Formats: sequence, C-alpha cells, structure tokens
Amino acid sequence: MPLSAPPVDSARGSALYQEVLEFYARQMRSLDEGRVTEWAATFTEDGVFSAQAHPRPQEGREAIRQGAAEAVRRLAERGVRRRHWLGMLDVTRHGDGSLTARSYAQVIDTPIGGQAAVELSCTCEDLLVREGDRLLVRHRRVDRDDLPRP
Amino acid sequence: MPLSAPPVDSARGSALYQEVLEFYARQMRSLDEGRVTEWAATFTEDGVFSAQAHPRPQEGREAIRQGAAEAVRRLAERGVRRRHWLGMLDVTRHGDGSLTARSYAQVIDTPIGGQAAVELSCTCEDLLVREGDRLLVRHRRVDRDDLPRP
Amino acid sequence: MPLSAPPVDSARGSALYQEVLEFYARQMRSLDEGRVTEWAATFTEDGVFSAQAHPRPQEGREAIRQGAAEAVRRLAERGVRRRHWLGMLDVTRHGDGSLTARSYAQVIDTPIGGQAAVELSCTCEDLLVREGDRLLVRHRRVDRDDLPRP
Repeated sequence: MPLSAPPVDSARGSALYQEVLEFYARQMRSLDEGRVTEWAATFTEDGVFSAQAHPRPQEGREAIRQGAAEAVRRLAERGVRRRHWLGMLDVTRHGDGSLTARSYAQVIDTPIGGQAAVELSCTCEDLLVREGDRLLVRHRRVDRDDLPRP
Repeated sequence: MPLSAPPVDSARGSALYQEVLEFYARQMRSLDEGRVTEWAATFTEDGVFSAQAHPRPQEGREAIRQGAAEAVRRLAERGVRRRHWLGMLDVTRHGDGSLTARSYAQVIDTPIGGQAAVELSCTCEDLLVREGDRLLVRHRRVDRDDLPRP
Repeated sequence: MPLSAPPVDSARGSALYQEVLEFYARQMRSLDEGRVTEWAATFTEDGVFSAQAHPRPQEGREAIRQGAAEAVRRLAERGVRRRHWLGMLDVTRHGDGSLTARSYAQVIDTPIGGQAAVELSCTCEDLLVREGDRLLVRHRRVDRDDLPRP
C-alpha cells in the first residue's frame, strides 16, 4: 500500500471517502442516541461485529441489535451519555467494490451532571459493501488499546 | 433521512462536505485563538447562538462577539488554552441551498503548565447559509452531554 | 485568507483535502504502530520536524527516524499505546504546488491494562510538498498547548 494515494486515485476516491465519513457519522449517532434498529440496519443481514469487549462476535443483525440494546440499557442505568468518535480514516478499495476502512475510535463518556472523559481508545477495521445505494458493514473488528493483543 | 447518501448525491456533495469541514476548522480556530471579531463574522448579521451554557441565546453578531470576548477573557485569567474539536459531521442540504450540519463537539482544555483533558462533550446543530462565496452560521444550537435534556 | 474558500476553489480542492486527511491517517498510524522507517519516509529527505518537546529540531529522515524509534522504545518500556489524532484541518495551497496544512492534534495514551486519557493537546503546521505521486512533509512544527509560547 503506497504511503499516499496518487492524485488521480485520490480524485476518484474523494466522493467515496466523504461518503464513508458521513456513513460513520450517521451510524455512530444512531447507536449513541439509542436507535438500535437503525444501528443494526447499518450492518449487512449477515454482518459480524467482533470486539474484545464482547464475549463472542455478534453475528447477524438481530444479534447486533440485541447487543446494542443491552449496551444502551446499561448506560442509561448508569446515567451516562456515550459518544463514539471515529477519526484518522484510511479507505482501501478492493476489486469487487468492497472497501476496507481503518480508523481510530474514541469513546467519550459523560455522566449526566458529571465530567466528560475519554473512556476508551480503540482501532476499528471494517469491511464495507454497497447494497443498492447504501454502504453497509459486513465485518467490523474493534481492538481496545488497553487490552493486550494476541 | 437515508442511512447513507446515494453515490450520485455523495459525489455532488463531496466538495460541499469538505467546505463545511474546512469552515469549522477556521471558525473554531478563530475562537480558540481569541480573534473574536473574525469569529463573530462567521455568523450572519442576525445569527443566533444558542447553548445551555448561555443564560439566553446570543442574538446578532455583536452579542456573539461580546459573548466570545467574555469567554476568552475568563480562560486567559485562568491560564487555560481551549480547543474546540468538531467531528462526526453529517450534512443535509435543503431546497433553498441552506445546510443543516450536525456534529459532535469536544472541548479540550489545557492549563498552561498543566494537563490537557476533555472538558466537555456536546452535540452541535447548525443552519448554514451562503452569502456570496462564504458559508455563515445563521443558527447554532449546542447541547452539552452533561446536562439533562428537556 | 478568506474565512471560507469560494465554492469553485472548494470544488477543486476537495480531492486534495481528502488526500491530506488520508495522508495523515496513514502517517500517524505508522508512528503509532512503531513502523519508524515508514514514518520517516513520509518526510522529505531533508525534512525538518520541530517540536517544543524536542531539545532541537530533527533534521533529515535519519534524525526523524531515530527520534521516532527512541519515542517508540520509551512508550513500550512504560507499556503505553499512543494514538495521534489530527483534526480541524485547514489546507492552503501555494503557487508552487506546496501546501500549508494546519491542524489540531490530540495525543491519547492508554496504558495496557489501564485507563485511556488525553495526554497532550497541540497545534500542528506542516509544509507539504509532492514528490512523484506522494505528499511528503518538508517542515513540521508542533506546539504543545501546555507550554508557554514565545
């Protein structure tokens, strides 16, 4: 992978890069605002969400929806507002039209009436595919920076 | 609102999205570096800046300038450098050419000689309009994550 | 410098802006993952990296590589994962094709087994040049928000 995409590639990729940025903005906000069915719909029907924080990968939209609903419930019980920030995005296009999107992620927690803080720093690697005119996550892997890596 | 803008829309919107990103970079830096007249000039003459931290909305450039000058003065007295980060941007275009820009915001404070920390996590919703070749904020609403919502 | 680039300029600049975003994503990840030769190769052969945290500017790729290797070693000894986030990017093009890229930077540290936190807030100003199809840093200046400015 070149350190910097050539200009012609960059020109073609500009709209795509922006589309991925906006996809993440909407996807993460749906989770952070507790719209878990909308969140699950940003994965493919057979989407997989793998994270060290999960005892096992969430496989399929229903498992992903249930996992999010459980996380939203726990945060509400603790009176915490959570924001997922993705940044430092790097997008690689594959021959079949799918994308690998690598990013950094910050989880910012704010207790209602309390002090905001960085809760977690992670890396995120997604395989994105297009269905109709929408991008969807087929596979997501999140690695927390506080946990040892195999 | 679709979860992911269609490609054609995304292609048309790419330059606009980048323009909004760069607008925010310049706007926030003007505030963070204490150039409050330049900051106020990024709002329309009748611009409104509404935030829970404000006892009432700041209405019009002069009120926005005065509010910023007061905030800059207080931070200087405390010896604190403040940085406003906007991220997770989602832009919606309206038929009249105006834009709704929704984003997350982090306020990072660093006392001179001290430790940086996340001071606040917020959401920001702007109505942006074009005057000549410039984007301006006609209405801004900032909601802090640490405060209860009505 | 206008507060907001005119639309025609913005349209021409969109691919470039995205290219700079992606350049930073890859550059910073190479440093954060300890690939210091790859990191040094994102500077020109005569590149200069100036930061208050350095006793003197790092001049040339070899000095930049050595400086990074030393920083990576110290972090590993302390069991800390470091992430550099750049954001709030503002790009200005010059007549000779070079770019000034101004950004905010966050350094997020996570001790393995410990709690992530914002370690530093900084500003970054780069002079970027193109060699072949790649962007490279000819000069970087990083200013920490916790240190007094001259």
